[in-house]
Amino acid sequence: MKITKPTLLLDKGKCRKNIENMVDRAKEFNCKLRPHFKTHQSHEIGEWFKEFGIDSCAVSSLEMAKYFHKSGWKDITVAFPLNLLEIDTVNYLAKEITLNICVESVETVQHLNKEIRHPLNIFIKIDAGYHRTGVQAQKLEEIQSIINEIEKNELVNFVGFIQHAGHSYQAKGKEEINKIHQETSQLMIDLKDHFKKQYPELIISNGDTPSCSICSDFDHIDEMRPGNFVFYDVMQAEIGSCSYNDIAVALACPVVAKHKDRNEIILYGGAIHLSKDRIEQNGRTIYGLISKKEDERWGSPIKNCYMKKLSQEHGTMHVDDEKFDEFNIGDIVYVLPIHSCLTANLMSQYTTLEGVNINMFHYR
Amino acid sequence: MKITKPTLLLDKGKCRKNIENMVDRAKEFNCKLRPHFKTHQSHEIGEWFKEFGIDSCAVSSLEMAKYFHKSGWKDITVAFPLNLLEIDTVNYLAKEITLNICVESVETVQHLNKEIRHPLNIFIKIDAGYHRTGVQAQKLEEIQSIINEIEKNELVNFVGFIQHAGHSYQAKGKEEINKIHQETSQLMIDLKDHFKKQYPELIISNGDTPSCSICSDFDHIDEMRPGNFVFYDVMQAEIGSCSYNDIAVALACPVVAKHKDRNEIILYGGAIHLSKDRIEQNGRTIYGLISKKEDERWGSPIKNCYMKKLSQEHGTMHVDDEKFDEFNIGDIVYVLPIHSCLTANLMSQYTTLEGVNINMFHYR
Repeated sequence: MKITKPTLLLDKGKCRKNIENMVDRAKEFNCKLRPHFKTHQSHEIGEWFKEFGIDSCAVSSLEMAKYFHKSGWKDITVAFPLNLLEIDTVNYLAKEITLNICVESVETVQHLNKEIRHPLNIFIKIDAGYHRTGVQAQKLEEIQSIINEIEKNELVNFVGFIQHAGHSYQAKGKEEINKIHQETSQLMIDLKDHFKKQYPELIISNGDTPSCSICSDFDHIDEMRPGNFVFYDVMQAEIGSCSYNDIAVALACPVVAKHKDRNEIILYGGAIHLSKDRIEQNGRTIYGLISKKEDERWGSPIKNCYMKKLSQEHGTMHVDDEKFDEFNIGDIVYVLPIHSCLTANLMSQYTTLEGVNINMFHYR
Repeated sequence: MKITKPTLLLDKGKCRKNIENMVDRAKEFNCKLRPHFKTHQSHEIGEWFKEFGIDSCAVSSLEMAKYFHKSGWKDITVAFPLNLLEIDTVNYLAKEITLNICVESVETVQHLNKEIRHPLNIFIKIDAGYHRTGVQAQKLEEIQSIINEIEKNELVNFVGFIQHAGHSYQAKGKEEINKIHQETSQLMIDLKDHFKKQYPELIISNGDTPSCSICSDFDHIDEMRPGNFVFYDVMQAEIGSCSYNDIAVALACPVVAKHKDRNEIILYGGAIHLSKDRIEQNGRTIYGLISKKEDERWGSPIKNCYMKKLSQEHGTMHVDDEKFDEFNIGDIVYVLPIHSCLTANLMSQYTTLEGVNINMFHYR
């Protein structure tokens, strides 16, 4: 395979291993795995999940739900607050598949009740500490009034509570991830206990890659919805969700210029390929880590070698003196992304190490 | 026009006015305008430039050069360090059009000399203070040795010096932009003076939107290559390149949830639509400013109302108490992007205020 421009490489072996590990974890914990497909957004990678027995998924938009419906998925959760303006798509999908949506206000349910034409499952989105979306877990009255509104229409079926502990992405290590998992899970379990007399079938659904990757207490959680684990990335390796060796995607970038006086190498590979997601580490801003080819795949990240600046097509990489001359104009280097979801979304295509192209959903 | 999901709106009138203003400025200064098309990346918007008499452009990749070649552009500068791995594309384009490329090392020219099959123009990329790419303007010997290498092959034709004063994007107001423009221009003029006996036809090319938008001293600059001005954005308005009223694109986003207790409204519109580009202002991080519809277009930015957090599809908007209830679930709000180039690149399509879709280059 000849790489001539920024190319998102996918190590199929690592990716399938990540899938298998998560399937095994979910089985071990007797917890249903409903993987979030917003990371890979790919029909073909979805098929790999089917091989491991997975038959339901989560997505982050109704458009993405349509895409996966077309590739045969029949039970899809749109893990994003219902966008009332797309009610036509909701009705289209609700007619065709088991569609599960998320709401977090009486107002949204009132509108929905007027316009829904087909049976639909509803989760109430719970804020268990991340404070992005959802009703605060402690607000039982508010939750009850949303349930009451749902009860007014026979087509809409209350199925449970859903939360995303996104604050685990800011965790500093496994201990903090475990703490977040325990706190958020307990809030969800308490909610279930409160409402289970009324709704004995209700489920609680959690879904962040850090908790699902390392925590072991899922006894009372019915469903897990991690997404990023399919590829992992530098952020996940840094917080302890995975090892660097588990990262299944890397952006191959040509070296186009060198500036030895400031230890900088310019790559063709910038913000339109990697996204501007970054981590701060020891006073440095890092937009990706660097590796070189080893045995027909990318190797481990090179010590003290990283993307320090990105503009549209330009990536500026830092490399120490002793390694500087190992990089030459015309070489390909491999950038491990900070956030694989956004990198994949920008690239819109994967190339396996064997040179096979895998297409993705274009939401645009 | 019914908007149901994140949509990049283009105010065609403002965009054409921005083009016309820059064309007029270039004429006034007797400076050739070679607009950079990496911002809009659109065949159709390119045609608007033609209506104003523009017949050459700059792009940021060889793939983008191919796209604009297909829509009839015959004189294209690839304003990015030559990527030797794409020599086949260089040869293809050099045969078809006037192709101008940028180099900044002897090594790159040596490789190029071996592989080039058709006449090609070469700019030497100069670092006049931005310190991203280019040979430092003061390094006359290094520049001379690159020229000497270029002289070894008759197919490659040295045409001049090119620089991008990207540090003007960090300027705090017009005074600082003017200072950067004067410093960088003087370095380029000195270079031209030094080499003009040897190359009486050589040109110097500058190209950053802030300088080209507000500075008036272009007497000795032969060519200007601004790109962002076609749309402008919040960053440009903040540094003084334009007014907020000049911004020609906005992301229309549905309101999906409200959290009054923390003055937050959740939009369907996140990092995959706007990019994670941001500015820091009075201790706040801002990913976009907010406006509402006024007279069939978006209005002025609402005071103290801004995007404070982005994740993949979620945008979290801050709004003060007194305005909070003016936003309802199901409304459309308009987000003025921090960096229009990256937003346009992500959206891949414009919709005019009249509801006409305009397609873009997909570089992927």
